[in-house]
Amino acid sequence: MLVNCVAYQNGRKLADIPAEDISEYVRRPDCFVWVAMFEPSQQELDEMAEEFGLHELAVDDARHGHQRPKIEEYGDQLFAVMHTVEHGKTPDGDDELLSGEVDVFIGRNYVLSVRRGTQVGFAAVRARAEREPELLQFGSGYVFYALMDNVVDRYFPILDGLETELEQVEAGIFARRSARSNIESLYALKQKLMVLKHAVDPLMEATGRLYGGRVPQICSGMGEYFRDVYDHLHRIHLAIEGIRDMLQTAVQVNLGMISLSESEVTKKLAAWAAIIAVPTMVAGIYGMNFKNMPELDWVYGYPLSIAVMAAIDVWLYFNFKKVKWL
Amino acid sequence: MLVNCVAYQNGRKLADIPAEDISEYVRRPDCFVWVAMFEPSQQELDEMAEEFGLHELAVDDARHGHQRPKIEEYGDQLFAVMHTVEHGKTPDGDDELLSGEVDVFIGRNYVLSVRRGTQVGFAAVRARAEREPELLQFGSGYVFYALMDNVVDRYFPILDGLETELEQVEAGIFARRSARSNIESLYALKQKLMVLKHAVDPLMEATGRLYGGRVPQICSGMGEYFRDVYDHLHRIHLAIEGIRDMLQTAVQVNLGMISLSESEVTKKLAAWAAIIAVPTMVAGIYGMNFKNMPELDWVYGYPLSIAVMAAIDVWLYFNFKKVKWL
Amino acid sequence: MLVNCVAYQNGRKLADIPAEDISEYVRRPDCFVWVAMFEPSQQELDEMAEEFGLHELAVDDARHGHQRPKIEEYGDQLFAVMHTVEHGKTPDGDDELLSGEVDVFIGRNYVLSVRRGTQVGFAAVRARAEREPELLQFGSGYVFYALMDNVVDRYFPILDGLETELEQVEAGIFARRSARSNIESLYALKQKLMVLKHAVDPLMEATGRLYGGRVPQICSGMGEYFRDVYDHLHRIHLAIEGIRDMLQTAVQVNLGMISLSESEVTKKLAAWAAIIAVPTMVAGIYGMNFKNMPELDWVYGYPLSIAVMAAIDVWLYFNFKKVKWL
Amino acid sequence: MLVNCVAYQNGRKLADIPAEDISEYVRRPDCFVWVAMFEPSQQELDEMAEEFGLHELAVDDARHGHQRPKIEEYGDQLFAVMHTVEHGKTPDGDDELLSGEVDVFIGRNYVLSVRRGTQVGFAAVRARAEREPELLQFGSGYVFYALMDNVVDRYFPILDGLETELEQVEAGIFARRSARSNIESLYALKQKLMVLKHAVDPLMEATGRLYGGRVPQICSGMGEYFRDVYDHLHRIHLAIEGIRDMLQTAVQVNLGMISLSESEVTKKLAAWAAIIAVPTMVAGIYGMNFKNMPELDWVYGYPLSIAVMAAIDVWLYFNFKKVKWL
Amino acid sequence: MLVNCVAYQNGRKLADIPAEDISEYVRRPDCFVWVAMFEPSQQELDEMAEEFGLHELAVDDARHGHQRPKIEEYGDQLFAVMHTVEHGKTPDGDDELLSGEVDVFIGRNYVLSVRRGTQVGFAAVRARAEREPELLQFGSGYVFYALMDNVVDRYFPILDGLETELEQVEAGIFARRSARSNIESLYALKQKLMVLKHAVDPLMEATGRLYGGRVPQICSGMGEYFRDVYDHLHRIHLAIEGIRDMLQTAVQVNLGMISLSESEVTKKLAAWAAIIAVPTMVAGIYGMNFKNMPELDWVYGYPLSIAVMAAIDVWLYFNFKKVKWL
Repeated sequence: MLVNCVAYQNGRKLADIPAEDISEYVRRPDCFVWVAMFEPSQQELDEMAEEFGLHELAVDDARHGHQRPKIEEYGDQLFAVMHTVEHGKTPDGDDELLSGEVDVFIGRNYVLSVRRGTQVGFAAVRARAEREPELLQFGSGYVFYALMDNVVDRYFPILDGLETELEQVEAGIFARRSARSNIESLYALKQKLMVLKHAVDPLMEATGRLYGGRVPQICSGMGEYFRDVYDHLHRIHLAIEGIRDMLQTAVQVNLGMISLSESEVTKKLAAWAAIIAVPTMVAGIYGMNFKNMPELDWVYGYPLSIAVMAAIDVWLYFNFKKVKWL
Repeated sequence: MLVNCVAYQNGRKLADIPAEDISEYVRRPDCFVWVAMFEPSQQELDEMAEEFGLHELAVDDARHGHQRPKIEEYGDQLFAVMHTVEHGKTPDGDDELLSGEVDVFIGRNYVLSVRRGTQVGFAAVRARAEREPELLQFGSGYVFYALMDNVVDRYFPILDGLETELEQVEAGIFARRSARSNIESLYALKQKLMVLKHAVDPLMEATGRLYGGRVPQICSGMGEYFRDVYDHLHRIHLAIEGIRDMLQTAVQVNLGMISLSESEVTKKLAAWAAIIAVPTMVAGIYGMNFKNMPELDWVYGYPLSIAVMAAIDVWLYFNFKKVKWL
Repeated sequence: MLVNCVAYQNGRKLADIPAEDISEYVRRPDCFVWVAMFEPSQQELDEMAEEFGLHELAVDDARHGHQRPKIEEYGDQLFAVMHTVEHGKTPDGDDELLSGEVDVFIGRNYVLSVRRGTQVGFAAVRARAEREPELLQFGSGYVFYALMDNVVDRYFPILDGLETELEQVEAGIFARRSARSNIESLYALKQKLMVLKHAVDPLMEATGRLYGGRVPQICSGMGEYFRDVYDHLHRIHLAIEGIRDMLQTAVQVNLGMISLSESEVTKKLAAWAAIIAVPTMVAGIYGMNFKNMPELDWVYGYPLSIAVMAAIDVWLYFNFKKVKWL
Repeated sequence: MLVNCVAYQNGRKLADIPAEDISEYVRRPDCFVWVAMFEPSQQELDEMAEEFGLHELAVDDARHGHQRPKIEEYGDQLFAVMHTVEHGKTPDGDDELLSGEVDVFIGRNYVLSVRRGTQVGFAAVRARAEREPELLQFGSGYVFYALMDNVVDRYFPILDGLETELEQVEAGIFARRSARSNIESLYALKQKLMVLKHAVDPLMEATGRLYGGRVPQICSGMGEYFRDVYDHLHRIHLAIEGIRDMLQTAVQVNLGMISLSESEVTKKLAAWAAIIAVPTMVAGIYGMNFKNMPELDWVYGYPLSIAVMAAIDVWLYFNFKKVKWL
Repeated sequence: MLVNCVAYQNGRKLADIPAEDISEYVRRPDCFVWVAMFEPSQQELDEMAEEFGLHELAVDDARHGHQRPKIEEYGDQLFAVMHTVEHGKTPDGDDELLSGEVDVFIGRNYVLSVRRGTQVGFAAVRARAEREPELLQFGSGYVFYALMDNVVDRYFPILDGLETELEQVEAGIFARRSARSNIESLYALKQKLMVLKHAVDPLMEATGRLYGGRVPQICSGMGEYFRDVYDHLHRIHLAIEGIRDMLQTAVQVNLGMISLSESEVTKKLAAWAAIIAVPTMVAGIYGMNFKNMPELDWVYGYPLSIAVMAAIDVWLYFNFKKVKWL
């Protein structure tokens, strides 16, 4: 679906143009075309490939989707793949992270973005750019930066969510809350973390080549901006690695807490077994049928035996309390 | 076994030629020979080595098989080893992944592929190449790319299968399905993953040297194609690492679930032990043979004692229910 | 909040100057301005940005805070982010490590430090510098070094604290002190370690580029000083990795100790169960109502039976003692 | 012990020569001396050092043994240390891997090999070289390659043995065979793996510098041969890492199987305890001495009570069967 | 404390000289001064700094100690920090490894070594050097090598001790010796290993820069000697990593053995419980007070019942023996 197709001149919007006029505008040296598509049909994409003269392999990647994040040069064109990450629901109603894809083709005077599997578009990026013609004048390199910055900025609330989740699980582990749901939360958190990691890490690596040494022509002179994006990605990367590290420890600690709580149950079981078994033994003894058992004839034999049993149990109870078995 | 031996000129099939004429065709500057073999005998391979002038060490590798994936230069020839990965059955009837081998010799105007341990050939690659003479004109470098692309494309359904398997095991772990079969599945999945990893990782590394800086003469001008293959391999590599990471966590989580379920059994055991032991103790007391036990003479002594036992047990039962031991 | 704004000439304090005069002093070639701010408002920061001509992206970073430690060049300016680490309290009253941020802008003849989330300022650094004009004469590069050295020096007592904590937990693990609190301590220690690690590691990496090969103009000629800072950071880094490694082993060892203590409880339970169950069984036998049980008529039948029970139990007790079950 | 000392000319054996004539033969430009020693005395080694003009540090290493595998240049001489790996027996009669050492000194026209702690010599290498004078003509570089190739080839059966062992342990883990012996096997396998790894990894690293960029003079022109050796070492390296990875998972999985089998024992224990405890409780009740217990006077009271006990036990038994506790 | 202060000329001892004459001797081109200090006071160190013209930052490091091992260039001077490792005792009387420090300042014609926290000095190094004037003639670079070689040589017996300890613990794990002391030994071994690792790894890294490419002036021409030291350090490094790896597996295996032994205790408990519970149940049944219980009146009722109990128990016993629960 073609979302938008606009020609700009000197940083100002010229006109919404039909797709078939693109090649004409792209040919004008002072003109700049910015196209946004959402899950385009094969035909729509082929048309764009022809209008912009895109490389076959890049178009192939954009057609099939499911690429890893990357930034590739095809001659003087750039092809970038970024992943968006959004909250979603599993069939069971649990939270999960969904990964969408944004493919961007950048040439000297055009930008084409192809969005897949994510509802959130880049209208805000375009609106801001149109309000600030002095930025848009920088051309396609700036638009590329703006799109990237927008995608990366959306990772931060996701990351914050994961950090909050980790804190909640940590609280649960030590508060003896249900060990089962703790394990499930730890695993679910790990799964979400991996989705974010798979979006962030390859993109960070790719972005690191957009500043410093030899950079693609389109990005030249904007090194500080791309370094800023890299920096944000690196920050997220470090945070992800931090969460991963804590998660691994948390899984082991949780295992320890389960063993510990099992150990506590065993102690309780042992203590109560003793408290019940001792009177049973005493009662068994006085239930024996020997002829000659003097105690049986005592007037206070019965209450005395009960008293002995109770005394032993009280003594046991407090002893078990003292060693924390009860 | 010689599967195919065809000479091409200007991208078009010239003729199926007998093996002994190869050297003659290879000598013609505008001619190009493409040979496919399946588990050749030593003699067949030696013949090819002579016709094409292959390097002794490369032929040795192709003869013995069991090489790791690699791409080596011998002068201006290339020798590539790739692993195919296919589903198979263990003697016990379980699923497993089998690794086959494809060795490819590439010269300026010939390609020789040697297949071992895999039934699936490259007829489709040849058919497509013959339908598109404009591609075949690129010569041996293109054929090498096409073969590689084909091998790599076959990894994707395998990878998808492993991802599906992981999801099933994950579901099993938390659904309290048989812990034993979960462990076995996790281990089997790890084994399969390693087979795929051993096919993918070295090949990815080797492919990374076919574009960018100094590349072998045969591959020059095709950098974007080999980068595309590298990219696919890198994607699989990342997915494998992701599965591996989740698997490790899954093994530990499964361990936690086993401990947890043991803990639950112990609690149940303790609860029922108490429920049975208390009446036994009471019965023991009234089974004592003391002369002077007034309760024994009460008319309702017996039903009362039963009622007391039942009352204690009901109270215990609901208490255990409340603390989730039952 | 503006903490300090002082102009220096030839290493000597010239005057406390108002913020609006800064640009005037900075323009003088022999003058040097050093400004310290604490959690400045947006307006205050914007004013400084204008006076010093700071780069928009760096100012953005300083405004929002929560950057990872880094040192970036913007033309001939430097922008550094450092984390301070301080002891604090969680809402539950437990110890935790809090991370503050110090952003430093360094130009040819000015230094601007922006402090966030930490009470401890750099008055000491300034005081020492003013007492030693021969150092201050080195200009902004020296001040940058002095600030950095100060921040890094504050990591050492934190690190010492973590090492002491590890030793205490280690002692606890083997002294059979409460396993639960050991686990919690291990986890809390890991959390603190990660805070320190996130402060130290990126800064170390960044500092490594301030000496040796190509260094920023401002730092040139001070390589040995920055190497010294790097060296301190590297030492802390190694210590952190050492603690991390020991922590991981400690978590597993603790798990082993828990299993072990569970095992000991089970043995005790088994031993006492046997000691109680055997007399119960014997008593049960002599409680049977068979007509013909000769022992029942013996005069010393009862004491004898008690003696047998006691003998068996004493034997059991010493046997269990011998195999260390009791 | 001097095993062999032979002078060659033009690839053909000239004569077995006494040790003291070596320096004379080495001085002749067209001559080539190949010496093999087995655990030489200090004096023998010193003599050789003098005859060949070996570097003091290299001779020191060869004298003391226990070096890590390495290849070092001393001027235009090479000094290589390789480890052989052989099957042996521990004092307890268990299988273990023993590490021997081969030190090789290579000069322009001599090769000196010093063998320690391994019975298998290099007679086969020499025999083959003498049969193929066209190879021996290549001189010391070729002999070095041939020795290395021979040592590396001997690693393969060792590796195969370890892979077979892993498969056997894997089978044992899931076949519920003795968990104790599984653990011991896993640990023993890990120990053997480390022996092989310590032989292979440093040698692989060192061999990687014998082809490609700047190579020692002696090895020049033989790059493809040394790459082949490197390749074999890399293959073994990958296989070792694969086994290590599986071993780690296997240890954890085995832990899971132990927990699981403990859990099964606990369930069985609980089930049988219930089956025995319930009749005991019922019997206890009818063993009470209340005057007024109507059931005691029923004619079929006794068989009825037995029937009730049996019925409850049968019901319990099948229920436990159903939930797989029995 | 000044241990030694000697001037040498042409490799021969000239005289023991007082500290204040050092600068005079250092100024003579053919003279060479070698000073050894043990835990010097600040004043002693300052004096030396002045005599030799040492760099302030290096002197600072030497004054405070607790540096990580490193080798730094200050202009044409070298400053090296090495750790010595020695056996010591914890307050509890356990073995531990203590880390001392040796700081060495090396200039064109002087060497100053500062020893801290270790009793063992370098008298042997000096004695040997004085006996071999042809070595001492090489000057300060050679003395530096000799000191380093001496420190590194002292690591080997420590390493051997750790390897022996590992073997003992391994034996303990499988010999069912006290699991508790095994865990403690494993942890203590890990601690010792980390002390050695912190001494060896940074020094190895630093030494790697003393040969090969660009080396400090003082070390030039001695590359093979420093490579030899590097080599020894690398060997220790590999051995440490090997022990670490085995230790990690050992900790997990030990965990498995603990679980296993717990499992065995549970089985024993279950078996004996059954053997005691069954006769108790039978006795309970014949203890019931039903009027009509024909067995009670049989003459051989009592011995028969005892025989039945015994028979069941014998059967149980052998069955439990057969399945290895007993």
